[in-house]
Amino acid sequence: MRAPIALADLNALSSTDIAAKLANVFEHSPWIAEQAAAARPFSGIVPLFAALTSALDAATPAQRLALLRAHPDLASRAERAAGLTADSAAEQGSVGLDRLSAKEQHAFARANQAYREKFGFPYIVCARRHTRDSILRHFERRLANDAPAEIAAAIREVSRIAALRLARLVTADDALPVNGQLSTHVLDIHRGTPAAGVTIELVELSRHGHDRTIARATTNADGRTDPPLIQYRPVPIGHYELRFAVGPYFAGRGVPVADPPFLDVVPIRFAVAEPEASLHVPLLVTPWSYSTYCGS
Amino acid sequence: MRAPIALADLNALSSTDIAAKLANVFEHSPWIAEQAAAARPFSGIVPLFAALTSALDAATPAQRLALLRAHPDLASRAERAAGLTADSAAEQGSVGLDRLSAKEQHAFARANQAYREKFGFPYIVCARRHTRDSILRHFERRLANDAPAEIAAAIREVSRIAALRLARLVTADDALPVNGQLSTHVLDIHRGTPAAGVTIELVELSRHGHDRTIARATTNADGRTDPPLIQYRPVPIGHYELRFAVGPYFAGRGVPVADPPFLDVVPIRFAVAEPEASLHVPLLVTPWSYSTYCGS
Amino acid sequence: MRAPIALADLNALSSTDIAAKLANVFEHSPWIAEQAAAARPFSGIVPLFAALTSALDAATPAQRLALLRAHPDLASRAERAAGLTADSAAEQGSVGLDRLSAKEQHAFARANQAYREKFGFPYIVCARRHTRDSILRHFERRLANDAPAEIAAAIREVSRIAALRLARLVTADDALPVNGQLSTHVLDIHRGTPAAGVTIELVELSRHGHDRTIARATTNADGRTDPPLIQYRPVPIGHYELRFAVGPYFAGRGVPVADPPFLDVVPIRFAVAEPEASLHVPLLVTPWSYSTYCGS
Amino acid sequence: MRAPIALADLNALSSTDIAAKLANVFEHSPWIAEQAAAARPFSGIVPLFAALTSALDAATPAQRLALLRAHPDLASRAERAAGLTADSAAEQGSVGLDRLSAKEQHAFARANQAYREKFGFPYIVCARRHTRDSILRHFERRLANDAPAEIAAAIREVSRIAALRLARLVTADDALPVNGQLSTHVLDIHRGTPAAGVTIELVELSRHGHDRTIARATTNADGRTDPPLIQYRPVPIGHYELRFAVGPYFAGRGVPVADPPFLDVVPIRFAVAEPEASLHVPLLVTPWSYSTYCGS
Repeated sequence: MRAPIALADLNALSSTDIAAKLANVFEHSPWIAEQAAAARPFSGIVPLFAALTSALDAATPAQRLALLRAHPDLASRAERAAGLTADSAAEQGSVGLDRLSAKEQHAFARANQAYREKFGFPYIVCARRHTRDSILRHFERRLANDAPAEIAAAIREVSRIAALRLARLVTADDALPVNGQLSTHVLDIHRGTPAAGVTIELVELSRHGHDRTIARATTNADGRTDPPLIQYRPVPIGHYELRFAVGPYFAGRGVPVADPPFLDVVPIRFAVAEPEASLHVPLLVTPWSYSTYCGS
Repeated sequence: MRAPIALADLNALSSTDIAAKLANVFEHSPWIAEQAAAARPFSGIVPLFAALTSALDAATPAQRLALLRAHPDLASRAERAAGLTADSAAEQGSVGLDRLSAKEQHAFARANQAYREKFGFPYIVCARRHTRDSILRHFERRLANDAPAEIAAAIREVSRIAALRLARLVTADDALPVNGQLSTHVLDIHRGTPAAGVTIELVELSRHGHDRTIARATTNADGRTDPPLIQYRPVPIGHYELRFAVGPYFAGRGVPVADPPFLDVVPIRFAVAEPEASLHVPLLVTPWSYSTYCGS
Repeated sequence: MRAPIALADLNALSSTDIAAKLANVFEHSPWIAEQAAAARPFSGIVPLFAALTSALDAATPAQRLALLRAHPDLASRAERAAGLTADSAAEQGSVGLDRLSAKEQHAFARANQAYREKFGFPYIVCARRHTRDSILRHFERRLANDAPAEIAAAIREVSRIAALRLARLVTADDALPVNGQLSTHVLDIHRGTPAAGVTIELVELSRHGHDRTIARATTNADGRTDPPLIQYRPVPIGHYELRFAVGPYFAGRGVPVADPPFLDVVPIRFAVAEPEASLHVPLLVTPWSYSTYCGS
Repeated sequence: MRAPIALADLNALSSTDIAAKLANVFEHSPWIAEQAAAARPFSGIVPLFAALTSALDAATPAQRLALLRAHPDLASRAERAAGLTADSAAEQGSVGLDRLSAKEQHAFARANQAYREKFGFPYIVCARRHTRDSILRHFERRLANDAPAEIAAAIREVSRIAALRLARLVTADDALPVNGQLSTHVLDIHRGTPAAGVTIELVELSRHGHDRTIARATTNADGRTDPPLIQYRPVPIGHYELRFAVGPYFAGRGVPVADPPFLDVVPIRFAVAEPEASLHVPLLVTPWSYSTYCGS
């Protein structure tokens, strides 16, 4: 990734240089940044992004279609070989689209082809907001859209991609609302204190047998993980399981339990629907009971 | 299984006939029933069982060893081919010991051999009180015993087997405390009512990848399953997961939820340590939270 | 109260004798029972009650008005002096209307007068379904009705009174759905067992400072009270507080707690809206946490 | 209260001036500050307080007794008339000792006299750490001490008073651990969000009928009160009730509930044992259930 540029420095550049700097915020489409540059200086990254989306809104249908067509096919081995933009490569890698099996690649290729035949442009999705499963699920839903609805949906994804790219490219005092957070907290209500030293796994679940552990942590003296399980990025839409090793925790504290203990690993299975939200999923636990809730 | 005999009818028999009837309560050892028969008439099945165990307690060490040696090897294909008692066959089948892979059979055979070499009699365990995993775990523990401790442990298992066999063989007004129960209950605390129509799976977990669904049910108007998930038998020692399909339940009630819903299938993972206990594991749930506890 | 009569015996009586037996099921109105008697024999108390309400439904508006006018004023000292029916006296006593202060009697008298002036008959409410507070609250609501709505409401109360009187007067194999139940259950989720020996108070709350303890109990080995706090009668509409002495319970079990303990008496404040329902309000508690819910 | 002095400014003063500034940190005993001043400059308020307590530890028994005797009687009208130090007056006022009834004053006076007769110095307690009830309870306990134990207890209270006075008198980058916090949080687990707009009362409970509301607040968009219910001071040892008006909250959100609603005002009754702790008592609530716990 390129080094980010401070907003003040960006404001001092010429339109052409701004367009060059922000050329790929919208894939292969520097003209959007060039038009937006007329509105400089920008008082923050939020106004800057608003100027970019205004330029996109003001574009002709043909220009918007060209923008959509400038995107690569998702998960295409051919395109990867031919060279993606660095951003596209990183985004697709974030969700594991560069590690598909031959069978999965084939499925993606067929879906891409069906989509492209129906709409005339490649399937675009903001990969950083998704798990692999949710990308496939959305693929199916969007394939059922009519053309105007799907163009609007694709443009919305393009804007989401642009916001995330811009947030990584420009530093400013304000922030685009592109990141979420996933945190937890273990309370030992047997003893009335935070539970320290509980090991936790966060597993991304997949309908297709690709469950993978995406974070491991141990609770600190406050019963929290330090840092949160996910932060400074979107929390991908998808299904997850938090696994709390409470059996070893209570055994280590000398609490009398059954043999085997009633609770050992407590799994909490939940879904994320809003990647930009702050989601807190705590565990309140004794050796004989627990509760959880969707907090914030 | 033979038809059970009423206690009153049993009381009316001769010692010899009682010994014949109860011949296999203790494996291949009718002499125990014959001695106990002297104490007839029995006022209940509990006194009858007490008379049987008294006879066993009064036996010589050599007689007790002979009793232990009269038992078959666990999970032995050779013995199954040669013919187990009907009781032994059913008991071993209850825990799946008749469906082992070749590799598992080999593991059992080696363990049996090690055990027999150390103690001079076959490994005996009351199979109906165990899952396959817990049998293996207990095998390891008991192999570490010294001879006197292990003879006592084996006799205890023989008594447990006998109590279960007797309970199936003789009907009476009283009951031996050989059975446990596993039940659940789903409360919809979003609406303040029992949750009816929730599908539930009970899965026996295995460290060795043999997870298997042992009960499926749908909650009735009281939020309970009808009948309980397990009753009229011991609840085998082991690890379990209850899976509650709360996503479809709330969707079916038109409750507004996220997409995908925060909670879909709620797994509750727990262990059973006392097969004769009554264990109640309820779920109190909203679309955004749940709690459970070990009740009775 | 008169001794109840078995339904079979009632079926064997003449119309006149039935009317005499059931004369006061509808206050001072034996004609209803007399008409219903034509349908005998009754296969159960539910069909018997249906026959009574059919006779009431078939009555002329003038007859129905006469029935309403046959009722006494609620909480009237003058009427009590003049002599209520035994049923009316017991019903009014159940809710404490015979123990009003002079000020309260005055308030009731004024409300009764306003009601009688508006509708031409006394205010009738099924007192056994109410606390004193809810009677007053319903008084205000019903005074706002128009005449047809209020006549319907009064007849509904007359039927409720009749159902309760009939249920006490006639024994049968079936039952009228006139009774509710209030129960509780204390689970010690610190230890994973029912909490035995917890003292519990059930207090009826009043906006007017008349809080009164209506039940005291100590939990048994199952963590329940034996019998339930309220059963075999309607649970009066009103506000309640259950008070659980968990501080002494945990202290008695030697559980380490703070000084003073975080939890001592746990109050659970709730309202009853359906007197015929079965309401279960359990407490799940550790020295540092608790939860409750409206169960059944 | 005097304006606080910055630690840097204090460090620049002479011993005499420091003693003057801190004269009353220990009641009427500037000699302690004067001795501690030798250790200046102080790198923080914690080392400063350590120097003060070292001076106290190094004092002779006679000096310590003189310090104890320099304190006023608690809740004495005579002393208040004669003039307390400003600190003593504020401290006693914090707990309501200046608003006692004649009967209570009499009780305090008798207890003070009994104490003074037994130990030869007045009863000293760090009033800001207590409610009126807990002061009386501790009075009884300490009266049972023998002299050495009670002198140690009194000196500990003197140090606690001094720490609180010093924390108000001197500003520094570090902080003495003299303050606690009491906060709450309402989660609407019916909707899966923080509950905004719930009115909350915090009531100090008294065995003697002096319950008093000490805070009122309404939850903000995060379901929290802004600021916490108690902060920047010790949370007095005592019994409390939090009252959450959840009935109006759910009614205002249009949630279907019973009439009257099952839950209206939810009371949570708890005790505070450690005034310097951070205590978080949240409410997780639906119209039909709730839970709470002692968090931090």
